[in-house]
Amino acid sequence: MSFHEVENLTEFLDEVKLKMLNITGSSNKNIIEISDYVLANPGKFIRTQLVFIYGSVIDIEKKKLIELAAAAELIHLSTLIHDDIIDEAKIRRNKPTVIAKWGLKKAILYGDFLYTKTFQALNSLENTQIAEVLISCAEQLIEGEFIQLQNISDKNKEDYFKVIEKKTAILFSGILECLGIHGKLVKEKISSLKKLGLNFGNAFQLNDDLADFFDQLNSGKEKFKDLNEGKITYPIIITMSRADKDSRNNISKLIEEKKFDAVFDEIEKNDGFNLTRLERDKAINNCIEYTKTLFKLDNVELMESFLKNSLKA
Amino acid sequence: MSFHEVENLTEFLDEVKLKMLNITGSSNKNIIEISDYVLANPGKFIRTQLVFIYGSVIDIEKKKLIELAAAAELIHLSTLIHDDIIDEAKIRRNKPTVIAKWGLKKAILYGDFLYTKTFQALNSLENTQIAEVLISCAEQLIEGEFIQLQNISDKNKEDYFKVIEKKTAILFSGILECLGIHGKLVKEKISSLKKLGLNFGNAFQLNDDLADFFDQLNSGKEKFKDLNEGKITYPIIITMSRADKDSRNNISKLIEEKKFDAVFDEIEKNDGFNLTRLERDKAINNCIEYTKTLFKLDNVELMESFLKNSLKA
Repeated sequence: MSFHEVENLTEFLDEVKLKMLNITGSSNKNIIEISDYVLANPGKFIRTQLVFIYGSVIDIEKKKLIELAAAAELIHLSTLIHDDIIDEAKIRRNKPTVIAKWGLKKAILYGDFLYTKTFQALNSLENTQIAEVLISCAEQLIEGEFIQLQNISDKNKEDYFKVIEKKTAILFSGILECLGIHGKLVKEKISSLKKLGLNFGNAFQLNDDLADFFDQLNSGKEKFKDLNEGKITYPIIITMSRADKDSRNNISKLIEEKKFDAVFDEIEKNDGFNLTRLERDKAINNCIEYTKTLFKLDNVELMESFLKNSLKA
Repeated sequence: MSFHEVENLTEFLDEVKLKMLNITGSSNKNIIEISDYVLANPGKFIRTQLVFIYGSVIDIEKKKLIELAAAAELIHLSTLIHDDIIDEAKIRRNKPTVIAKWGLKKAILYGDFLYTKTFQALNSLENTQIAEVLISCAEQLIEGEFIQLQNISDKNKEDYFKVIEKKTAILFSGILECLGIHGKLVKEKISSLKKLGLNFGNAFQLNDDLADFFDQLNSGKEKFKDLNEGKITYPIIITMSRADKDSRNNISKLIEEKKFDAVFDEIEKNDGFNLTRLERDKAINNCIEYTKTLFKLDNVELMESFLKNSLKA
């Protein structure tokens, strides 16, 4: 598929949404009701955008790109349903979460339903290599949640990147790996695509961490949602690592007492937000470098602007 | 595979258990801890027995039988982890449930992990037809749970069989369908195998319903576990359908007040247990009839005794 074959991203998004609707079809009224609610909730479709942008410059038929994007979005969506139970989240994308609206039991079952339907769709592709990559991503997403449950406090930079590699970056990496497989690229190029995906995921998560403090409208998150759930995000970790013992204890106390505005001030004072932005921009630059080694120069410009637009809140 | 190739069922069971261990391998300590606990818990391995008995008389290589049995057991096990959350069950097979031992969050994630590993194993079989049958079973198991959540009270015989077809029978039916596919049987024979499986499932569930009132040692269930979870099982449904309005109200009141010994007496008085046994035996006889049309007479005897032994508590 080349650029001129796809009229625009909006059209592609609509086709992916339609595919997702088809995949999640059910005869059960209760399931249909929840699916209608969940699938109507817009979200950024960042995974679909990634498939669209990078899939357009590799020679892959559109049908395969739509299937890949739908599967990736559904894997992401499945994990969100159960993550929201685990995080006790009440709001997702400006609307009540499935657990908030339908209760624990239906939220568990609906998550299971989405997982199952996604695997069914992967199986129907009759491409076990693609399915293997994406199922393995699902496994790591779950493992990432497990690790997050284990070490909520006292996290360092290294732990942080270990968790977000599994929780966020791995699916972006898996998507790009699948594009490489579909495009029959050589091993080295697929390996570069995977690393690009990991960097993309890191930048995406760091940006999302920042959004917890700044940007409520765009992200659809409640303000201080991560903090409320006891999630120690990068701005806090980097601040802690630079602060002296007294300051560290003070920040921990403020978090515990849920005095989040004061936490914000502490981070600002210690330059924690700027350092987070620096780390994010480093990851974005890595993405751009990998992109340059992988693709022709006249395609890189578009990708560069996509990376900057989607990864900088 | 013919009978003489398999030394005995115990050996086959061991190989299935080993396969399950391999499939569920993980590098995460928390996951390994729960897996060790869950997989060590014996259970009846009725699905493995079914694969062994019927798979032995159809010409299928042992490797495929082990893969099928392990996948079926794991699908069953995955649903149990989440079912125990939904049913608020504290005991499973004489031991605390995963949610009772590790809490809600880890129980949700562990169930997701098992699902994912099972689908991974199905994908690695590189037989999309087999995978499709079993994934579709998983979907219906989940749908069955949904239906059960919706109509807990005021259930009639028809509703009952609709729910247990999805919740229990479908996986037995799917297992036999897979055996038919592996054995390259003609359509009509596969159709008979599926019906055999549905009857097997009905008999199995009716027998399990009876065990709630009688047999605690063998089933590993707490006494009156179903009743405690608000599950209206067949002995109650059939009793209700025969009782007059006053008796029905009385039984409902007794259930609500958790006076389960009195419920037992009401069922006994109305012949509800015997009628349940009759319904179960009818299903067992259907299994035997299908078996006779499908297999050579000298194999039927063994199957008949398997059916009677495993479906009569």
